Amino acid sequence: MTAQLSKKAEAWSARFSEPVSDLVKRYTASVFFDKRLALFDIQGSLAHAEMLAAQGIISNEDRAEIERGMAQIKSEIEAGSFEWLLDLEDVHLNIEKRLTELVGDAGKRLHTGRSRNDQVATDIRLYVRAAIDDIVALLNGLRGALADLAERHFDTIMPGFTHLQVAQPITFGHHMLAYVEMFGRDAERMIDARRRVNRLPLGAAALAGTTFPIDRLRVAKTLGFEDVCHNSLDAVSDRDFAIEFTAAASLVMMHVSRMSEELVMWMSPRVGFIDIADRFCTGSSIMPQKKNPDVPELARGKTGRVYGHLASLLTLMKGQPLAYNKDNQEDKEPLFDTVDTVLDTLRIFTDMAAGITVKPENMRAAALQGYATATDLADYLVKKGLPFRDAHEAVAHAVRACDDAECDLADMSLDTLRGFSPLIEEDVFAVLTLEGSVAARDHVGGTAPNQVRKAIERVRGQLKD
Amino acid sequence: MTAQLSKKAEAWSARFSEPVSDLVKRYTASVFFDKRLALFDIQGSLAHAEMLAAQGIISNEDRAEIERGMAQIKSEIEAGSFEWLLDLEDVHLNIEKRLTELVGDAGKRLHTGRSRNDQVATDIRLYVRAAIDDIVALLNGLRGALADLAERHFDTIMPGFTHLQVAQPITFGHHMLAYVEMFGRDAERMIDARRRVNRLPLGAAALAGTTFPIDRLRVAKTLGFEDVCHNSLDAVSDRDFAIEFTAAASLVMMHVSRMSEELVMWMSPRVGFIDIADRFCTGSSIMPQKKNPDVPELARGKTGRVYGHLASLLTLMKGQPLAYNKDNQEDKEPLFDTVDTVLDTLRIFTDMAAGITVKPENMRAAALQGYATATDLADYLVKKGLPFRDAHEAVAHAVRACDDAECDLADMSLDTLRGFSPLIEEDVFAVLTLEGSVAARDHVGGTAPNQVRKAIERVRGQLKD
Amino acid sequence: MTAQLSKKAEAWSARFSEPVSDLVKRYTASVFFDKRLALFDIQGSLAHAEMLAAQGIISNEDRAEIERGMAQIKSEIEAGSFEWLLDLEDVHLNIEKRLTELVGDAGKRLHTGRSRNDQVATDIRLYVRAAIDDIVALLNGLRGALADLAERHFDTIMPGFTHLQVAQPITFGHHMLAYVEMFGRDAERMIDARRRVNRLPLGAAALAGTTFPIDRLRVAKTLGFEDVCHNSLDAVSDRDFAIEFTAAASLVMMHVSRMSEELVMWMSPRVGFIDIADRFCTGSSIMPQKKNPDVPELARGKTGRVYGHLASLLTLMKGQPLAYNKDNQEDKEPLFDTVDTVLDTLRIFTDMAAGITVKPENMRAAALQGYATATDLADYLVKKGLPFRDAHEAVAHAVRACDDAECDLADMSLDTLRGFSPLIEEDVFAVLTLEGSVAARDHVGGTAPNQVRKAIERVRGQLKD
Amino acid sequence: MTAQLSKKAEAWSARFSEPVSDLVKRYTASVFFDKRLALFDIQGSLAHAEMLAAQGIISNEDRAEIERGMAQIKSEIEAGSFEWLLDLEDVHLNIEKRLTELVGDAGKRLHTGRSRNDQVATDIRLYVRAAIDDIVALLNGLRGALADLAERHFDTIMPGFTHLQVAQPITFGHHMLAYVEMFGRDAERMIDARRRVNRLPLGAAALAGTTFPIDRLRVAKTLGFEDVCHNSLDAVSDRDFAIEFTAAASLVMMHVSRMSEELVMWMSPRVGFIDIADRFCTGSSIMPQKKNPDVPELARGKTGRVYGHLASLLTLMKGQPLAYNKDNQEDKEPLFDTVDTVLDTLRIFTDMAAGITVKPENMRAAALQGYATATDLADYLVKKGLPFRDAHEAVAHAVRACDDAECDLADMSLDTLRGFSPLIEEDVFAVLTLEGSVAARDHVGGTAPNQVRKAIERVRGQLKD
Repeated sequence: MTAQLSKKAEAWSARFSEPVSDLVKRYTASVFFDKRLALFDIQGSLAHAEMLAAQGIISNEDRAEIERGMAQIKSEIEAGSFEWLLDLEDVHLNIEKRLTELVGDAGKRLHTGRSRNDQVATDIRLYVRAAIDDIVALLNGLRGALADLAERHFDTIMPGFTHLQVAQPITFGHHMLAYVEMFGRDAERMIDARRRVNRLPLGAAALAGTTFPIDRLRVAKTLGFEDVCHNSLDAVSDRDFAIEFTAAASLVMMHVSRMSEELVMWMSPRVGFIDIADRFCTGSSIMPQKKNPDVPELARGKTGRVYGHLASLLTLMKGQPLAYNKDNQEDKEPLFDTVDTVLDTLRIFTDMAAGITVKPENMRAAALQGYATATDLADYLVKKGLPFRDAHEAVAHAVRACDDAECDLADMSLDTLRGFSPLIEEDVFAVLTLEGSVAARDHVGGTAPNQVRKAIERVRGQLKD
Repeated sequence: MTAQLSKKAEAWSARFSEPVSDLVKRYTASVFFDKRLALFDIQGSLAHAEMLAAQGIISNEDRAEIERGMAQIKSEIEAGSFEWLLDLEDVHLNIEKRLTELVGDAGKRLHTGRSRNDQVATDIRLYVRAAIDDIVALLNGLRGALADLAERHFDTIMPGFTHLQVAQPITFGHHMLAYVEMFGRDAERMIDARRRVNRLPLGAAALAGTTFPIDRLRVAKTLGFEDVCHNSLDAVSDRDFAIEFTAAASLVMMHVSRMSEELVMWMSPRVGFIDIADRFCTGSSIMPQKKNPDVPELARGKTGRVYGHLASLLTLMKGQPLAYNKDNQEDKEPLFDTVDTVLDTLRIFTDMAAGITVKPENMRAAALQGYATATDLADYLVKKGLPFRDAHEAVAHAVRACDDAECDLADMSLDTLRGFSPLIEEDVFAVLTLEGSVAARDHVGGTAPNQVRKAIERVRGQLKD
Repeated sequence: MTAQLSKKAEAWSARFSEPVSDLVKRYTASVFFDKRLALFDIQGSLAHAEMLAAQGIISNEDRAEIERGMAQIKSEIEAGSFEWLLDLEDVHLNIEKRLTELVGDAGKRLHTGRSRNDQVATDIRLYVRAAIDDIVALLNGLRGALADLAERHFDTIMPGFTHLQVAQPITFGHHMLAYVEMFGRDAERMIDARRRVNRLPLGAAALAGTTFPIDRLRVAKTLGFEDVCHNSLDAVSDRDFAIEFTAAASLVMMHVSRMSEELVMWMSPRVGFIDIADRFCTGSSIMPQKKNPDVPELARGKTGRVYGHLASLLTLMKGQPLAYNKDNQEDKEPLFDTVDTVLDTLRIFTDMAAGITVKPENMRAAALQGYATATDLADYLVKKGLPFRDAHEAVAHAVRACDDAECDLADMSLDTLRGFSPLIEEDVFAVLTLEGSVAARDHVGGTAPNQVRKAIERVRGQLKD
Repeated sequence: MTAQLSKKAEAWSARFSEPVSDLVKRYTASVFFDKRLALFDIQGSLAHAEMLAAQGIISNEDRAEIERGMAQIKSEIEAGSFEWLLDLEDVHLNIEKRLTELVGDAGKRLHTGRSRNDQVATDIRLYVRAAIDDIVALLNGLRGALADLAERHFDTIMPGFTHLQVAQPITFGHHMLAYVEMFGRDAERMIDARRRVNRLPLGAAALAGTTFPIDRLRVAKTLGFEDVCHNSLDAVSDRDFAIEFTAAASLVMMHVSRMSEELVMWMSPRVGFIDIADRFCTGSSIMPQKKNPDVPELARGKTGRVYGHLASLLTLMKGQPLAYNKDNQEDKEPLFDTVDTVLDTLRIFTDMAAGITVKPENMRAAALQGYATATDLADYLVKKGLPFRDAHEAVAHAVRACDDAECDLADMSLDTLRGFSPLIEEDVFAVLTLEGSVAARDHVGGTAPNQVRKAIERVRGQLKD
């Protein structure tokens, strides 16, 4: 009888009058990608068997046999000796068939009170939960690495840009901390998504629940789920948790793409703000002088990949009637690739953070190139009593004069400056320096070196928790 | 001097040697859509002015003037008499210019210590926060309406489908509760997103903070924000919160699309499970007999709209260097339309839930059409001692025989049934009834009427909170 | 010296002071997916070498050596014995290094006057061109199979639906021909895209062209390209042709998704319009009676996959500065998977078309269930002189009366019908039959069996071309 | 009787027992956006009426009345005096109702032999066809403007970048021509899409054709369609032509986004390659010195908008059963906004091309900053007999030495250079100049000024056609 499952089609063979064609078999099989869920599948099966025995649905002997068989299967999979068969379609039937080979009837009893529909939903949730935990750890690792970099440059002055035009001086440390905040929110989102992932679908069976006296809360506890899915149709048919996760991953990649864009630009020779260590760069097959920032460029490109997976999953679920449809088999590959992409990218960015060399002199030169302290001059006038809008107007005239004279605001004589407003006095030159400008932005979230240090401490505190 | 702002270009005119062209003006203006933020803009400005006065940055007289002016502007806007000028580009400059007309220099002082970059980020967050509160309330309203519908049909039997094939009998109440669960998670997601929306960017000014001794926590408290954005560059440049919101909205619409798909199908004459009240349907310009379920169809179509906005916002932010770029102006229209679409759709679905008439006889007939109790027979055999896989195989043979004989399992004689397994006895017929089948799925999340009632109570409890 | 390339990093090693890290190597390598381009890479190299020799840039001996080496490499790849090395990063360097092992200096001369940038662009274009040719052939194969099915049912009456409500009777053949038209346009789009794919980038070198006296038209001719890319920067940096192809593929899948939706619904027992042969269906692990239309469901799901790839590629190219950036390496996997998905799906649908059994009696019963001939009655009244809008109104009253009386229009007595319009006479009953209705729509594109036959002939003519 | 249509619901009122609710009316109405199709709707109706009369289906008097009424309606719409009613739901019923008011029964006869399903499909096709014609003209206008700019700088040297690293010198003219090529392909795609747009759906009626003896070819000819849709179900249900158009528009915006990215970067002070005229820039509300390249930034942002519309339309059509469903009403807004966005963007970019000032000295300085002629040195060595791979290696050593010595290749002495290869002789210095490098890339598609001029001539020739 164990031959029964040697071809998967035989799981339902008695009802069918012709075998599935080879093309169909290949088209509909999932084993070559869902075998990745194998250890989660075993984990779920063991929890299910434990409960079946506790409820008296199977015997303790059967449970012991199942555990023995699963231990062997696990070691075969880990050793790479497990034979995955296309004919058995998916990870579930491959494992169940092997189990039945190993332990006979006990193996055939494992599927009591469940269906592949709730089984696969359980596997995916276990998988996504583990992925989230890895991603959160890596996000925090990256935040730590960026905080270290920020600390080394808490007072290194660079131009702050809006519209890629020099706006106001900031510190490089402050700039890095912007990303620390972004990746912090990404971690928050992952943790929020985790709560919705971490609910047990098992027990929903095909779609309606089962006639066996199962104990779903027991299984949930064994597997570390916070709750059970409270409706069986919903449990097997929805994949919103996977989409929510992929949306959160898309935001991680969005943030990565922004940082990448800046790293690539900063490493361009005309900008020259940073250098990235050789081990993160590659050269050219034709231009011997090239050193290319491949890692951030590729990461920027991979943003499309994850966005695409999100689009794919959203499309997949659009308009699907309840409960389970085969369409849902398509949920796995986008999910797996999203996880791989995010994990690899976060790892490599964490490493790369330590390989960034800052070139403060180029940053300083750039900050001096765009009237970066014009706002400081306007604020100075406001403090002398001019309404802000009038101050803004006066400074605009001064900037235009500088532009014509090809000099910086700080290079103008006091007399000339007073031509734009009689309120200007000798003390103006203190506010026109880059150091004066950054130091003056000394409030929560501001770029003052003082604030940058406090912000780093705050982040370090969060990372310790 | 108040003429200064009568054309927006003049806000920076002194630096520019030629006016902006008309086409450019129209292309870059946002006032025709961002005027929608007007009341939030005023709310933010009032909180800012209150703080400026408390910190001694402006006088209390100025603050009073600003409040007086804003009260008038608010009433003009509400009365529809406020004149929006394209030349003033956006909601912020339109209001500020009018304020300066009304209160003179006090108006020109309002912009002290802030920039349009942090101002608009504050406005959008106030807007999204309000939208989330509305959406959560509507989601819960819809859940209540569906729970009412479920209660009326807690034991109305219909076929549960997988692959649109009859799988097992379920109750219509149970089916409705699947959507109650989905919309419940949608509400959770909105609430989670709200925490990240509800942080104050104001004080970030253009991108680096300001030189004025502002008190950001005070403003946050006034506006009901839970925290401040802790990095000024991040505060003005990121829109992840808007994307997270749109992703959550996309999942709402995904769930709506699934429910719509089912409603449309159920109302198709061959299926005939439900009728939708005339007030939610329309007819045909050519076919006099038609009654079309326009509302769910249109809602299904609008899923694409919200998905598209998500794609739009993700694309928008991809690879944008810090801090603020004009690209970000494009964040508003997708957001506004997403909010409108979700609000309207939830409202109309809540109404429509009360307009759904269930046709139990058609549901029952359908449930009898696909061997819906075959799993019950397999479970019966398992309980008699047969391993599940063997039971499954035996029933498959029985189903095939029924198929040939064009009868249901319950129509076979005991003798015939025993031909498939000698374990079958007289008591088998109890498990082959639809009522027996649903009643037997009596565990948390199962379809038993008993469980459906408990689930409704649970939902009612949640909605009371 | 041939050891020089044994690690790819050494292609530029002299300029670098530290090796690429293992994680970076894995992150940036493409060989595990781009080796799929190997035969196209060789084809391109051979055409390049032929031209280099013809132009006297390399010797004829070198060219002969290159051809000898490439022949060997090709046979190694086809035999599966070629050793792909991660250290050599991509398909190009793997092949070039092996070539240099085999033929020495001639191999090192092959890269003269080209770069990997134009080389990979050429490979991809050759790949997409071949994919298009395969897809067009399969689209036409599917059209032929559907035309055969249409021919078998050129006069089989079924209800035509709008809004899933019965609208007017049509023939099943006519319905199938709608898809024949759609897939015909898909083929047109592929052919149009092919013209833009089929232009030679080689000769653009890294981005600026080369200093060698190359003959690009000669290479284009050898490789069957219709033209050369007329700007070197454009040649290496754009991937619009790949996006255009993926957009065309998305439309193929969109059409597939619509057909799938209908097949799944038609096979649902309540509708019961068709049966799909067992070899395209699968069963259930728990419900022994199930026969699920897995193939169309999965195909519908795979629509998301291809849409996602389109989103991915569009995102990838958004905002990329010229010329080549590493981001572009991400163009391949979405493209490969799109091709695989479309090819497999078209193959299986072509097979499946022959496995569809139509159930005319169920179709007929359904057509009789929704006043399908109401429009015919309105048209009848118009022909008797009533303005269309008034006729429409009169029939609406008749339908409502039928609804109350639970009968069809054809079941009413002449007297009763005359109550709605005195213009109705005995001849009305001819127009109220399903056969009369379809036969009357006898113009180009109409559903009359007569027109269905003509349309099939037209398609057959197109397929012959 | 003309009151019959004064509320749209009355078009089918007799069949319905309760009126549509106000919320439903607003939710399902399309008139506030589809009124944009009004003139196309009238154009289609006139062609339909002309044919009805020619075929004797309506009288010539009726046709004359319809023409008279439509002329009046057209002038009312153009004058802005036409009253659009929400109660009449859409553009079609608003116009038809007004027509009936104006001309009585003739107006009620207009809808003979058609349905709103084929009517709206016709309107949209006429709209898209006109949009394509406008877009193609604008694309060619932009190409001309860029060619003019290219001509002014056919030999202005700038660095060509790959990976934003200096790769090889190119000319600015050559760079501009890359975009001329891209926009050229965009125009090709639009023209290809036009052929599929330009087919007549009218005559398909609701979905099955009509019982009246219509002449579809006559209508097609009147309206300038190249063919009729050959299957009535397909004619009313598919929107692939709109998606194809939106995909082509997405590629236009993709190209715009790349150009925008470069313009923004080139205008950043550290790069300083260009200046954009003040009329395309805006300033800051807080930083008086700012001049921001708003137009290219906003255009880059609008890429997301059009991508989003594509995603929206693809989602809309996914899995829709035939024939017409209300979902399709959602096709219009994305389409309209896509057209507006593309038209405005192309117009403004064409204007802006003339407002770009090139700064050749900054470009030259940048080209000297990255060993841009290293490939020339390698090519030089190859021409002296060294295999390319060995030449590449030798030059890599030279570059590294320059890097250490902080000088350019051209700054090294002959002796030092010979240290890297004894093949180097006095004539090497000619190939190490920027001018020598660009001039040497003198083949079709290469950057040599000579080739740039030829390419401009070629483009001018295309634009003349």
